[in-house]
Amino acid sequence: MDTFELGNFRLVNGYTIPNARLAYTTHGTLNAARDNAVVFPNFLGGNDAALEMYVAEGMALDPNKYFVILPGQFGNGFSSSPSNTPPPFDRGAFPPIAIADDVIAQHRLVTEHFGIERLALVLGWSVGALQTYEWAVRFPQMVTRMASIAGAPRPSPWTLHWLRTVIEEPIVTDPAWNNGFYAQASDVQAGLRRQGHCMALTLPPLAYYHGDLMQRLGFGSVQDFVRGFFEGFMVGQDPNNLLIQARKALTADPAQGGSLPEALGRITAKTTIVAFTGDVMFPPQDNEVDARSIPGAQYREATTISGHLTTFGLFPEDRQAVDDAIREALSA
Amino acid sequence: MDTFELGNFRLVNGYTIPNARLAYTTHGTLNAARDNAVVFPNFLGGNDAALEMYVAEGMALDPNKYFVILPGQFGNGFSSSPSNTPPPFDRGAFPPIAIADDVIAQHRLVTEHFGIERLALVLGWSVGALQTYEWAVRFPQMVTRMASIAGAPRPSPWTLHWLRTVIEEPIVTDPAWNNGFYAQASDVQAGLRRQGHCMALTLPPLAYYHGDLMQRLGFGSVQDFVRGFFEGFMVGQDPNNLLIQARKALTADPAQGGSLPEALGRITAKTTIVAFTGDVMFPPQDNEVDARSIPGAQYREATTISGHLTTFGLFPEDRQAVDDAIREALSA
Repeated sequence: MDTFELGNFRLVNGYTIPNARLAYTTHGTLNAARDNAVVFPNFLGGNDAALEMYVAEGMALDPNKYFVILPGQFGNGFSSSPSNTPPPFDRGAFPPIAIADDVIAQHRLVTEHFGIERLALVLGWSVGALQTYEWAVRFPQMVTRMASIAGAPRPSPWTLHWLRTVIEEPIVTDPAWNNGFYAQASDVQAGLRRQGHCMALTLPPLAYYHGDLMQRLGFGSVQDFVRGFFEGFMVGQDPNNLLIQARKALTADPAQGGSLPEALGRITAKTTIVAFTGDVMFPPQDNEVDARSIPGAQYREATTISGHLTTFGLFPEDRQAVDDAIREALSA
Repeated sequence: MDTFELGNFRLVNGYTIPNARLAYTTHGTLNAARDNAVVFPNFLGGNDAALEMYVAEGMALDPNKYFVILPGQFGNGFSSSPSNTPPPFDRGAFPPIAIADDVIAQHRLVTEHFGIERLALVLGWSVGALQTYEWAVRFPQMVTRMASIAGAPRPSPWTLHWLRTVIEEPIVTDPAWNNGFYAQASDVQAGLRRQGHCMALTLPPLAYYHGDLMQRLGFGSVQDFVRGFFEGFMVGQDPNNLLIQARKALTADPAQGGSLPEALGRITAKTTIVAFTGDVMFPPQDNEVDARSIPGAQYREATTISGHLTTFGLFPEDRQAVDDAIREALSA
């Protein structure tokens, strides 16, 4: 992982983070024409490995062909985050971040550091898709293609309630929370585990609870699945970092309070939108509506095993569906 | 509301509640042949009014025709409950209750107090359906007809996880919980409200969040709906009482650990099973499987507005669908 120094970085809300930084990872080589770069932002709680499973020889994002930048995001624990910023912006005092802040920082990395003027593709899912839409609306001249996979330009009303109930509440009601000034992240692990319990209730399609899908993943029971997978996903995270990421998603809006169809109408990227059947977080019917506002957008609903969890690539079929969607976007 | 004194009531787990009581309400008159009685147990957190909307002249459960007994249940705050039982069984020390305990107490009310030998119908939804199945398996000679509406003989794996995550956890992790020995129920209201938030996330079909359904109910936003409806439903409840009800649902099993199909196969009641499309709590596909084990059972999936919330009768169309299901059961 590399680090791009942003200096004193002024956020859209007016706070300035001193010596801000964006940690990033790249795969492949920027070609002489500088036209093979792909920007692939991450999702809430995601890490490089969660995206790198889709960056490999023989897959759509082949590093022999593309220069893939995983730009990270504020609040992920590697870029400037509550967990790694000194006072007066440490821990519970870290300022709120907007999706636009991430994208502005990523844009600086791409232009100032790599000297790239146009991107072959910006893509992402979930919170990564929120960033992708922000890229396409904010910097249309730079984004040749964009792909939203299991995403949207902003969260739906249900998803806003999900972010508050599943991510925020279990943390801020944990007695060890202390307004974000806990001694160490694991002090708040009861809250992190409760997040996992709520995720298990809301994200996997009901089929996970009725067939042998959990067994295929190596879990013998619902209890083992909840503990091993969802609690496991959460307990390694820092509570303040998660809140920063959730709150940026809560305020995501490439239209900045204006008309969303109008903002989407300004997108010039060749746009590919793929939604997964049963994704309650970013439902296919919403994706279809968004696609209608984007000139020339290609929309497709794909039936997969895992609904919103498809991009986790837990099953070979899910991984294939995601790789197919990326291939489709690259050939647009 | 009337009260049936159960005396020293021995629970299936071995505890004996001294001077136990079952509070109940009746509508209509028991006829001379004593063959027009209907037993209608309640759901988790339910009250008489929630069932009485279906007991009225001109509706299927017409009190001019049927003698409708709303028998209540342990833990509902009127029958013996943590909130109304003196030491040593008060509050957090109230013993766990099984669905079978409710049904045994209800059976005593029906036989000892009313002298009824056969019931025209036992029906219920959700936890009320768990009790209905227990009635039909435990006392087959008494149950002429049974109806499970948005119910099942026991909770699905998802529903078990729901009961733990949505009902148990928000209460037992509330700092005011104190192992059930809080001074008053409202001390734990933050936990009760969190229950409401999780319910809002998991029970209404996604259509509630996308169309004008909340507006039709008089709520201007998701926030108002969550606060006005779901928090409102929970904050009047006693936390210990809710836990008792949730834990009885968690252990519901008319087969008592044996083969469920075999237990259901012993049902002699004319059985009507109605599931609602989009009910994640008691999914249609599960209902259909259960129905196959019950001799002569009629199974039907009904498409309604509100999924598992259909029985709340929030919309005239939902109320009609429930009344139709009851009428169907009575004519079986």
